[in-house]
Amino acid sequence: MLVQKYRDMLSQKSVIRQLSEFAAARGREIGYENVFDYSLGNPSVPVPREFTEAMIHMLTTRESNELHGYSPNPGITSVREAVAASLEGRFSLPYRKEHIFMASGAAGALAHAFRLVTEPGDEVLTFAPFFPEYHPYVDLTGAVLRVVPPDTESFQINFEKLEEMLTEKVTAVLVNTPNNPSGVVYSAETLNRLADTLRRKSGEYGHDIYLISDEPYREIVFDGAETPCVSCFYDNTIMCYSFSKSLSLPGERIGYVAVNPRCRHAEEMVSMCVQISRGIGHNCPPSIIQLAVARVLDRTADLSVYETNMKLLYEELVGLGFTCVRPGGTFYIFPRALEEDAKLFCEKALKYDLILVPGDSFGAPGFFRMAYCIDTEKVKRSLGALERFVRETYGR
Amino acid sequence: MLVQKYRDMLSQKSVIRQLSEFAAARGREIGYENVFDYSLGNPSVPVPREFTEAMIHMLTTRESNELHGYSPNPGITSVREAVAASLEGRFSLPYRKEHIFMASGAAGALAHAFRLVTEPGDEVLTFAPFFPEYHPYVDLTGAVLRVVPPDTESFQINFEKLEEMLTEKVTAVLVNTPNNPSGVVYSAETLNRLADTLRRKSGEYGHDIYLISDEPYREIVFDGAETPCVSCFYDNTIMCYSFSKSLSLPGERIGYVAVNPRCRHAEEMVSMCVQISRGIGHNCPPSIIQLAVARVLDRTADLSVYETNMKLLYEELVGLGFTCVRPGGTFYIFPRALEEDAKLFCEKALKYDLILVPGDSFGAPGFFRMAYCIDTEKVKRSLGALERFVRETYGR
Repeated sequence: MLVQKYRDMLSQKSVIRQLSEFAAARGREIGYENVFDYSLGNPSVPVPREFTEAMIHMLTTRESNELHGYSPNPGITSVREAVAASLEGRFSLPYRKEHIFMASGAAGALAHAFRLVTEPGDEVLTFAPFFPEYHPYVDLTGAVLRVVPPDTESFQINFEKLEEMLTEKVTAVLVNTPNNPSGVVYSAETLNRLADTLRRKSGEYGHDIYLISDEPYREIVFDGAETPCVSCFYDNTIMCYSFSKSLSLPGERIGYVAVNPRCRHAEEMVSMCVQISRGIGHNCPPSIIQLAVARVLDRTADLSVYETNMKLLYEELVGLGFTCVRPGGTFYIFPRALEEDAKLFCEKALKYDLILVPGDSFGAPGFFRMAYCIDTEKVKRSLGALERFVRETYGR
Repeated sequence: MLVQKYRDMLSQKSVIRQLSEFAAARGREIGYENVFDYSLGNPSVPVPREFTEAMIHMLTTRESNELHGYSPNPGITSVREAVAASLEGRFSLPYRKEHIFMASGAAGALAHAFRLVTEPGDEVLTFAPFFPEYHPYVDLTGAVLRVVPPDTESFQINFEKLEEMLTEKVTAVLVNTPNNPSGVVYSAETLNRLADTLRRKSGEYGHDIYLISDEPYREIVFDGAETPCVSCFYDNTIMCYSFSKSLSLPGERIGYVAVNPRCRHAEEMVSMCVQISRGIGHNCPPSIIQLAVARVLDRTADLSVYETNMKLLYEELVGLGFTCVRPGGTFYIFPRALEEDAKLFCEKALKYDLILVPGDSFGAPGFFRMAYCIDTEKVKRSLGALERFVRETYGR
């Protein structure tokens, strides 16, 4: 009488996890410093000192019941106010605490967003390449995730395919920019065209189509650029944010839903999030972590290492003849493999202790992902292995 | 296109919350110290010093990425090992880390437990009086919560009604001992008879019936007693625990699922919890909080104030002529109101700044709940108000 759908999932092992386990096992043989493990998107830069100081300060000065007491259902009021003020200052949209729902990381935020606007059977569209966890996130709500094939030239949006797939059944479109796994940042032009398309189709079908914007990599952008603000382009946007990457604390499960103040029923949607929580056992992110991030909202960890690593890898890959879109952010790069079957390509790379992830599970077969959230010193050492792999395997 | 079932919930305001808001508003008028607010079950005793010290120690000595990094999906391995060892030592069941799934409080634990063993349309039985949040917890999974009427003499289980209601559709039975709101601890006799019933019916129907045991009040027991271990009576038990009450940190959202090692497929069930998490955005409780509670597993806050308060209230209530089962634990007491309509009774008490919660939403009309997790000094001051209320309103 155990529920079969979850039992069935046990046999489907994630490729990323298998590779990461391989890397760990190989590390036990030859020393982990000799394994060029590009498998996992796990932040590697230290947490900002101010976060740790805020935690210690609260633990040493505040009354414990106040500090560790129940958070109100949508989050601690002062924290929501601080988040709203920070977003308003940054994106010039009139955010108020009534638009903010504190959530346990981006996964928690997305779990609420999908339930706000999809009934079982409704369709959610996302764009390849995409984070593979979107499948269980959406499919287990009863809605259906459909993946728009990639524009492999730019990894911006393939609008031709979007037009075809954006049927009346679609109630939400999910974007992730800067993007995991491509590292691409959607341009203002892309976001404008996406917004136009969604407005036109909403009108045509006579129902709102929501844009769910998953933004954990928002602060990791390169070349001094900024990520264009998705919510600024389209009123019916539900922003899902996580501090995991910007503050380097993925284990503390802290993020938020920010409903665009211009979205119809925006405040009601936050109240609905509270109801959704009751059904999924959410019940707020940890109080002390809410209070601590509120003190460092406009700070980030020192994220510069990711740009340094990107440049080293991008130049090397292009030099070796790879076709590759230059990442505008994140800590991922997504080149085309040197043979059609990226799984084979990645398997052959293992011989050189290079752990690369085939693009198949990201919805882009023929490509592979490297997560370069590792020490720059290791990236440098990996370049020789990469060269040998390419020369010895593909004669380049 | 917002999802109607959640919109509909917005109009159903919780009685407890309304009363608590009334108490806060009244407090702004006359000073909160003068409001005898027995509405909310919010722990009031300080967090153990050892917890705070463990937090500060880790923040000052550990490398930040290690401390705040991703937790493995079922929880941090060392934490699961520590929890298993603690449970094994205490209950003499062969718990191993493979039976432990770290969860965000009892709400998070229950969200996994229900999904493990219920399909939409299946029935879950619980026993009145019961925590009203069980309704959204269960009903929003698609399963149906049905409430077995109370045995109002003892608030143990009404077995006659259980027999009637335990049909083939039931896949899980949910118990909460020590009980919110009655304060009653199920006796070994009750648990034995419950286990016998479940085994007999499982055999009769040819499918397992799981016992889901919600145990956040397990450590708050009076008169030097211990809560009989539910899992020890019945193999197919899924224990859902929270540290909210025992360590007085409800805001930090930390608890666990412990599947009885003797339960069929126990280890597989923990792996299934990981899959369930993906669909509900759970993704582990906060890393630092997991690590900190692991260091104080066998400690509690100083919970003695709850027993002191219980004795004061119980004696006063009985002295005033109330019919009342003496609580064996928790920080609740659940007397019979002095008129049939407990809502009217509680409304009249407001005139004396006594905030009492009618039993209707707990499935026991005619009774009322007092949550005495407040200062003993305030409990003492409330006794005069209680006396005046009873004398002036009911002529006793």
